[in-house]
Order: sequence, then C-alpha cells, then structure tokens
Amino acid sequence: MKLALVKLGGSVITHKDRPLAANAGGIDAIAKVLAGLDMPLIVVHGGGSFGHHWSVKYDMHTKPAPYDPRGVAVVHESMVALNQIIVNAMVKAGSNPYAIPPPVYTAGHKPIASKIKGVSVMAQNKIVPVTFGDVVHMGGNKYSILSGDSLMSILARALRPSRVIFATNVNGIYKDMASKEIVPVLRPKSGVEFAKVSADVTGGMKRKVMEAFKIASLGMDVMLVNGLVPERIAQAAGGRRDVGTLVKGKK
Amino acid sequence: MKLALVKLGGSVITHKDRPLAANAGGIDAIAKVLAGLDMPLIVVHGGGSFGHHWSVKYDMHTKPAPYDPRGVAVVHESMVALNQIIVNAMVKAGSNPYAIPPPVYTAGHKPIASKIKGVSVMAQNKIVPVTFGDVVHMGGNKYSILSGDSLMSILARALRPSRVIFATNVNGIYKDMASKEIVPVLRPKSGVEFAKVSADVTGGMKRKVMEAFKIASLGMDVMLVNGLVPERIAQAAGGRRDVGTLVKGKK
Repeated sequence: MKLALVKLGGSVITHKDRPLAANAGGIDAIAKVLAGLDMPLIVVHGGGSFGHHWSVKYDMHTKPAPYDPRGVAVVHESMVALNQIIVNAMVKAGSNPYAIPPPVYTAGHKPIASKIKGVSVMAQNKIVPVTFGDVVHMGGNKYSILSGDSLMSILARALRPSRVIFATNVNGIYKDMASKEIVPVLRPKSGVEFAKVSADVTGGMKRKVMEAFKIASLGMDVMLVNGLVPERIAQAAGGRRDVGTLVKGKK
Repeated sequence: MKLALVKLGGSVITHKDRPLAANAGGIDAIAKVLAGLDMPLIVVHGGGSFGHHWSVKYDMHTKPAPYDPRGVAVVHESMVALNQIIVNAMVKAGSNPYAIPPPVYTAGHKPIASKIKGVSVMAQNKIVPVTFGDVVHMGGNKYSILSGDSLMSILARALRPSRVIFATNVNGIYKDMASKEIVPVLRPKSGVEFAKVSADVTGGMKRKVMEAFKIASLGMDVMLVNGLVPERIAQAAGGRRDVGTLVKGKK
C-alpha cells in the first residue's frame, strides 16, 4: 500500500554516549521533514540512550524471562518518555502523531493482523502512528525486549508499504571500514555479499542490515539512509534510491 | 480475584480550573499510598485539565465521529503526558508501574478478553498497570473518547476485582448539597434512591455514580472515596467501608 514505514534509529534520536540524552535538534529537524511528506506514514523508533540504556543496566534481552519488575517499569517508562519528545516535536512541526506502544498490535512478539490493519487505517486519516521498541509482557511472569527493528519486519510483512526506510547515523552500508565508501545497492540473494557486509558491520548496524534483508526477502525494497541528514528520509520516501544503500527486494 | 481496581479522577490528579495543570502534590501523595498496598493493583486515571481540556476544545465526545485529526493527536498526547507524571511519581515512590493505553486491551470500546487477562497477570507480577481514558480509533476515519469511568466497567466486568474504588475530590455521595452529609451505603436495586442521588450530583460525579451502579449491578461492591485524602484509598483497598460511600454489589 502507499505508505512510508520509517525507522528512526536510537543513534539518530539520542546521544548514545550519554544516558537519557535526546538529540533534540536532530528530532526537531526530522519532525519538520516528516511533516512535509505528502503520503501516509508510520514511524518506528528505537531506544538509544533511553530504553536501551536501562535494558542493559537491568540485563534484559529479547529472550523471554522473569526480568526484574523494576527493570520492566523503567525501560517502559523511559521509552514512553523518549516517544513523548518525538511526538511533541511532530505536533509542533504540524503533524498529527499518535503514540502506539507495540502491545496494541502484538501479542508477545506475534502480530495481531486486525490491529495492524487498524494502525494503517489511522495512517490514511492524516494521523501518524508512532511506535517504538519496548519491553513487552510474554505471559506468566515473563517479559521480553521487542526491538524497533523487529517491529519494522512485523509491520512491513503485514502492510507491504511502498517505502521502507531505516534512518541510522551513517550514510548507508560501508563497503569496508577503511574507505567508508557506501554500497549503493545490495541484493539479498547474494549470500556472499551479505556475509562480507556482515563482517564489516557491528552491533546495531548488523541487526538493521539483517532486518533489511529479511524485509527485502519478502519482496520489498529497503533504503538505509543517514537520518542525521533528514532530507534524505524525505528523498527516500519520494522514491530516490541514490541517497543511501538500497537493499533490493527479492522478485 | 484479589485485585484492587482504583480510578483516580481528573479532579484529584489535576487542577481542573487551569489547563494542563497536574496536581503534583496530590499525585505524589497518592503514589506513596499505592506503593504501600500489599496486593495486586490496576490504576485507571481520568483526563482532567489534560485530555478533557483538549477534547472540549476540539468538540470530541464518546460518540464515534470523524473528529479533527489534530484533536485526536493532542488529546492522546496530553493523556500520555499526564500518565507520565503519574507513572514517574509511582516509580519514585517504589512501585513498578507500566503505562497501558486502552487500545492494548480494547478494540474500539469492546474489551479484548485475552488482553485484559494479560493486564491482570502483569498485576500479579509486582507490576502496576496504569491505564487512562483516551481518544481511540473506531475504524475508518472515526474516533471516540473512551473515558476512564467506562474503562472501570470494562475491567471490573472482565476481572471481578476484590476491590473497586473510585477516588474523587469529595468524601462520597452527598445526601444533599446543603448539608453535604455523606450517604454511607447505597444499593443499586433502590431505584428511587438513585434517582434522588442523581438529581443532586452533576457532570463527572453523576457519571461516576452511574458507572459505580453498573459495576455494583454485576455483584461487586464499589467504594467512592476522597482521593485528596489518599490514605482513604489504602483503607478502602484494605476492606474498610466507612471511609466514603459504599455502593453495595447486587447479590
């Protein structure tokens, strides 16, 4: 469907070197760009120095486990706090954002089809659903981290958006760390290339590349762009493919 | 089940005469009392000078309609903001609150049984789910206000909590406005008494009495207490019935 699904990485919206530090200038600039988009939009954001900071502190992971209830409370609270900063910037910029934590449209890590449909209908109504990686209840006394990157796959699979965009703090996928030259196009069928790429990328970027490949394997093109140059998000939403790395959807 | 379901009215947690003014002192005092409760707890709160302020401004009601998307955005944003103030006070007081907007466990105004069950399981895990009246998507381009009082009925019906408590800014239901004497016990079967009471109460209080009667008609006792004297919430949760108006559950 005609829809831009945009992930704002934690490294774009927060200062990852300092706990609980939002990148207010970056968020305002992105909010301005998003308000100018003339198409339905769903935003997903990561945790950066908010949720991620606390989940590390409380040793919480994607694996369902009986994590400390205190950790569950503070991770969720900090994600809502970061979400509020983004939502307020978007309101100020003229958008009509609506915060949606993942349990609205997931049961544990599983999508609820009717609820995801509902979220996309809101996006058709000039509302911008804004969702985020979070700690979620898995049943019993178990909780789990459901990452913003996983939410991208869940939403992309269900909605097949016309644009899938990951905004990170780099220009795309590097060919190698020395030259920092960007790979313009990647094809998920090329296993060798992915292995080579994955050796060069670490941590968060590796997970993003993996999620991008997962989404591309479902037949959707994915753009990885630098969110610290916010107009590239708008350019990618408008259809430009030369503003970062294009991961080609498998035909 | 052993569970206290507590509604914090907008008149308790905000200053209704000023827009966007939280009653920080009142919230802190209530958070301290709630942290001392030794039983599973679910908190519901109203909108007061936050969500209610904006819903009046944008002419939004419980009736599903294509309300201004700007109104949808700012009502929801302001409710999350008020919720954050309450959640942060609860974290500080030592509880482990977890914010849950209504679309997590409702589809429009209808309860989702499995999700409400999940919320109650969280409450058994030393987490305190904190939910709130909000603007919700009703399908298509329609939205609606789902009030905190309605959420009380939805949650009480599904969970049959051992304690159902409405905290307002008065000591209970007045016998009449002149004496301000409190009715100690009301029985929903007594239609005359309800008619008489309803004539004396206005606006928010009337709706609370109606929801309390609805819940009582399902066989649960309901206490209406003064939340500006927070220990009464704890006393009512502990089983005292002389700290406000008791609406007797129909046997």
